[in-house]
Amino acid sequence: MDFFDLANKRRSIRKFTDEEVPEEVIEKSLKTALLAANSSNLQPWEFYWIKDENKKEELIKACFSQNAAKTAKELVVAVSRIDTWKRNKNLLINHYKEKDKLIPLVEKYYNTLVPLQYYYDPFGISTIIRKIILFFFSFIGFFKPIARGPSNKHELFEIVTKTTALACQNIMMSLVAQGYDSCPMEGFDKTRVKKLLNLNNKSHIVMVLGIGKRDPKGIYGDRFRINEELVIKIVD
Amino acid sequence: MDFFDLANKRRSIRKFTDEEVPEEVIEKSLKTALLAANSSNLQPWEFYWIKDENKKEELIKACFSQNAAKTAKELVVAVSRIDTWKRNKNLLINHYKEKDKLIPLVEKYYNTLVPLQYYYDPFGISTIIRKIILFFFSFIGFFKPIARGPSNKHELFEIVTKTTALACQNIMMSLVAQGYDSCPMEGFDKTRVKKLLNLNNKSHIVMVLGIGKRDPKGIYGDRFRINEELVIKIVD
Repeated sequence: MDFFDLANKRRSIRKFTDEEVPEEVIEKSLKTALLAANSSNLQPWEFYWIKDENKKEELIKACFSQNAAKTAKELVVAVSRIDTWKRNKNLLINHYKEKDKLIPLVEKYYNTLVPLQYYYDPFGISTIIRKIILFFFSFIGFFKPIARGPSNKHELFEIVTKTTALACQNIMMSLVAQGYDSCPMEGFDKTRVKKLLNLNNKSHIVMVLGIGKRDPKGIYGDRFRINEELVIKIVD
Repeated sequence: MDFFDLANKRRSIRKFTDEEVPEEVIEKSLKTALLAANSSNLQPWEFYWIKDENKKEELIKACFSQNAAKTAKELVVAVSRIDTWKRNKNLLINHYKEKDKLIPLVEKYYNTLVPLQYYYDPFGISTIIRKIILFFFSFIGFFKPIARGPSNKHELFEIVTKTTALACQNIMMSLVAQGYDSCPMEGFDKTRVKKLLNLNNKSHIVMVLGIGKRDPKGIYGDRFRINEELVIKIVD
């Protein structure tokens, strides 16, 4: 099946059959997630594959026991983090060093620019400092293009969640490519899901993916998209 | 080429060749974007295909004249909006009505729950009201799973940007499937890009996509991913 057939075939499935999903299918999908583009290659994502039966039960409840969670044979939680950049940029730098490919521009980028953007302290002092810098910077912005952020926690979370979503689309498509299906859920009690996974407040739950084989009754009607002229705009 | 070969082939290309990209390639990619999963099917995305030469020049400058923008044959700006939900949910409801498939649960969802989540006023009054409701609600949360948001503009933007990113991954993969390439850029002057597109403050620039044929020199080294055990976690 070509890519466009897969994209057409992918639907959010609200009810799965009893058929098990082979482990390799999930493994391959999660590995493919990691091939997605991501911000500055900082890979701020995490994917939790919940195999423990008790935790699965808890997670289903945290998803308000919706059918897509209840009938799913496998559950994966996608998480975005604003606190793994430091570890990851060091791993990146070490990799470049080992390959003898660490050029000064890259080192400066990861050791100066990335910390300037990503450093975050719980008291918000870094946010205030960044806002002051960006304020003065904004005068230059009258004359030439400048970077305008991120300055605060919300903007950081928008970046890491965006990147994690790119990976999630790869998961959903990988499943269809292997003959399986998914339902991306955003309706859940985030406090409970975070507690279940021992996550701190520097992480967001991006989505919970219910995974299995589609039950024909698990598709709620034809796909409806608003007129594409409303959202595809040609600027000419 | 199967899906996994495509996922492997997709790289962020920083330099494109002079080869033109046929219009149909972009059209097909943008149409495929719209097939991505999205929050409550509210389709809060917009894709601007910049054909006007002057605007293209301006956009390249707003992307700090980086090579991926300068050498791109086509440029597409992905935008997320927190202000199109009302129009879109009405279009959805009308569609269901026409098909005689508007069940009370769906109508209640779109006419009560969605506005409760998405309504946003510039003075932040809706945010305060939502925060108060969620505060009292949180006592129930001790005993059973509850929804914990979205309450403010930032959380709304995280939702719409996340959904738009799913669509962006479809665009990047569609391009590879057709033999073309892209570079998703997040380094740009967002104020200038928004001005260029006449966008209000209820929209965010999710990414600018540079599109073309890959120049072998446009790939900066082998793909590096941190050890997958750091990000794929099995909870058993």
